Amino acid sequence: MKASLLSIGTELLMGEIVNTNAVYLSRELKALGIDVLYQYTVGDNHQRLVEMIRESFTDCDIVLTTGGLGPTQDDMTREVACQVMGDDLVLHQDLLQYIRSRIESRGRKMTDNNSKQALIPSRAEVLFNDAGTAPGFILADRKGKKRIICMPGPPREMTRMFETRVKPILAEKADGVLRYRMVRTFGIGESQLETKLMDLIDGQTDPTLATYAKTGESSLRIASKRATAEEAEAAVEEMLEKVRERVGEYIYSCDDEELVQVVGKMLMERGLTIAAAESCTGGLFGGTLTSVPGISACFDRSLVTYSNEAKVQELGVKEETLRQFGAVSEETALEMAEGARRAAGTDIGISVTGIAGPDGGTEEKPVGTVYIGFVYGKKRVCKLVQRNMGERELIRAYAVKNMLDVIRQNISIEE
Amino acid sequence: MKASLLSIGTELLMGEIVNTNAVYLSRELKALGIDVLYQYTVGDNHQRLVEMIRESFTDCDIVLTTGGLGPTQDDMTREVACQVMGDDLVLHQDLLQYIRSRIESRGRKMTDNNSKQALIPSRAEVLFNDAGTAPGFILADRKGKKRIICMPGPPREMTRMFETRVKPILAEKADGVLRYRMVRTFGIGESQLETKLMDLIDGQTDPTLATYAKTGESSLRIASKRATAEEAEAAVEEMLEKVRERVGEYIYSCDDEELVQVVGKMLMERGLTIAAAESCTGGLFGGTLTSVPGISACFDRSLVTYSNEAKVQELGVKEETLRQFGAVSEETALEMAEGARRAAGTDIGISVTGIAGPDGGTEEKPVGTVYIGFVYGKKRVCKLVQRNMGERELIRAYAVKNMLDVIRQNISIEE
Repeated sequence: MKASLLSIGTELLMGEIVNTNAVYLSRELKALGIDVLYQYTVGDNHQRLVEMIRESFTDCDIVLTTGGLGPTQDDMTREVACQVMGDDLVLHQDLLQYIRSRIESRGRKMTDNNSKQALIPSRAEVLFNDAGTAPGFILADRKGKKRIICMPGPPREMTRMFETRVKPILAEKADGVLRYRMVRTFGIGESQLETKLMDLIDGQTDPTLATYAKTGESSLRIASKRATAEEAEAAVEEMLEKVRERVGEYIYSCDDEELVQVVGKMLMERGLTIAAAESCTGGLFGGTLTSVPGISACFDRSLVTYSNEAKVQELGVKEETLRQFGAVSEETALEMAEGARRAAGTDIGISVTGIAGPDGGTEEKPVGTVYIGFVYGKKRVCKLVQRNMGERELIRAYAVKNMLDVIRQNISIEE
Repeated sequence: MKASLLSIGTELLMGEIVNTNAVYLSRELKALGIDVLYQYTVGDNHQRLVEMIRESFTDCDIVLTTGGLGPTQDDMTREVACQVMGDDLVLHQDLLQYIRSRIESRGRKMTDNNSKQALIPSRAEVLFNDAGTAPGFILADRKGKKRIICMPGPPREMTRMFETRVKPILAEKADGVLRYRMVRTFGIGESQLETKLMDLIDGQTDPTLATYAKTGESSLRIASKRATAEEAEAAVEEMLEKVRERVGEYIYSCDDEELVQVVGKMLMERGLTIAAAESCTGGLFGGTLTSVPGISACFDRSLVTYSNEAKVQELGVKEETLRQFGAVSEETALEMAEGARRAAGTDIGISVTGIAGPDGGTEEKPVGTVYIGFVYGKKRVCKLVQRNMGERELIRAYAVKNMLDVIRQNISIEE
């Protein structure tokens, strides 16, 4: 089954609200194994709406509309649906009753406008609205081949209606089941990733592979649509194995988790305590790690030592080290990590010092130069990152991700 | 001028990401006096893309596309644009150079995929990408009547390209001159703001007023479109004065600056030094403040004391205080601020301690309870914020904004 989504409402075209309905419905339909071919957003314009729907039906079996079911003049979805599917509006007595009781129960008076909402295409299956007055409906064409599903625009009303009334109906009709996994990697670019998997990507019709890029990260979606969930899952797992053989070292999650979630979980599972010493990130590492609920069991403190004095006072970095190698150096990074671990008495100490720019770069240490120090037991590691993404904030965000990846790489085996 | 937006990318149809590009462009185009008639979202399907664009041109002068300009196989916007507008792709040497230098400056290897991004329609006007490798372009049909504007999909790259390269071109073509100012406020909700300005908002056709909500912030856009820039600017300023009279106390910027930029500038102008003590924000305050280039002259350190031990050791918070009032209390917040100022020897000490959730809330101190301590000279201030936005990250982000606002409110007059 193939579907198209039609969001109706001028406010969307004015950029006044984000179209969350389209995201929600796309995700839900995908899970049902229904492909969404188009998302349209159109204003309250009868003729355009008719054209959009007719056109969608050239290659879609279902059109889902949201909006235009209100009581006012510019709500025209009912009329449009009738014109396209060949039907007429009739007054639905149960609905009229339902709407009246809803309105009066809120101490408001029923207006003629409201009763307009009880007008429904004669052949339509009514979808009662548990969260508002505007009812929805499902209307099939005379041959029963094409279906239009009209739902109200307010997300709260629409999601409720879809979940309780529409989903069960679609689940029956959907052919095949789609399963997918989102594989997330760090340390390899999107085009590099694609190059390494080119033959798998080209060769496949099912499972399909698609790559996505994020700041310093690349994701890979492996999706399969088969007759049963079991078959689809098996096909995905088989492909995932092949992918692991090629790029396993870069993979940090096969379930679309954030790197910080993965690292936070690792720390909590292993019961490891950690303290940080930050310079160029100004606290972003601690701020990011503490986005994980429950991490207080592991994360003790972060000493954000922006000035050299702070590095000496808070972390015991030697003035000699700062003088000889500079604040942005392997030596300073390691003394910072040691200092944080010592001050907090934690298992792990991690540090970061670098040049986020826009100024402060040199020939030998250009903007984007970041040293990450890591101490754990007898292990002392320093990673040098030199990548200028052109923006201070990107360089800092990338530094934090590298810190997380350094932790991930170095605590995977118990020491 | 009438426009249609075409968002290209299967991930949108899969419901993996919200289409923020459509909102942004719709709003920007509206401000330029360009009507958006449609928003389309289509997958990576050559034929469908061609149809969508052809159809848009039946009643639109411009089609703006986002996405499909990447280096990989399923990026086909270039080819599609050529087919619709009647042109051929040529290898653009300057672009090839630019892309190579960008990639190599990041220590990456140039792949054949990447060079594909230097292919541009022969008649096209190139839009260089300051934030990524994928270039955009503007291509007119042979008659010069219709225009397609192709931009990359990542919002950061697209918005930068639109702001710096596309907007100026469109502004020229649009009839009349539009000028606007974005007024930013903190501490007043969008609906409150709207209520206070209702008559101004309703009464006006030009200048127009529109409110926008952000996490704990409300913005107001005052826009005027007149024959000349001077007239438009004068109209905006006149309205701005009226707005100031009503809600001046909440306004922190009339030029769409971020609160952190405003506060950072204030600190630097006044030559004030500052140190922070953070608990629930885990370092986000320091991380946010240090996003301001040059702030190292003012920001000395942030002591992120997540554990009680850390609060005692790093800040000298009294164990008695923690026992008697708890870590989340006015007393602890003020001792934390004092401790940070004392440790760093700065002019200002600011602190934050609160309950970000999801757990840890109590009857008396529910999730969302945040105390902000501030010491500056003899001034000792503690602000209590109690607002549960439902999400840990929103509560933390709101805490940081409140810290910035506390600074702004308390250093405006020299002490």
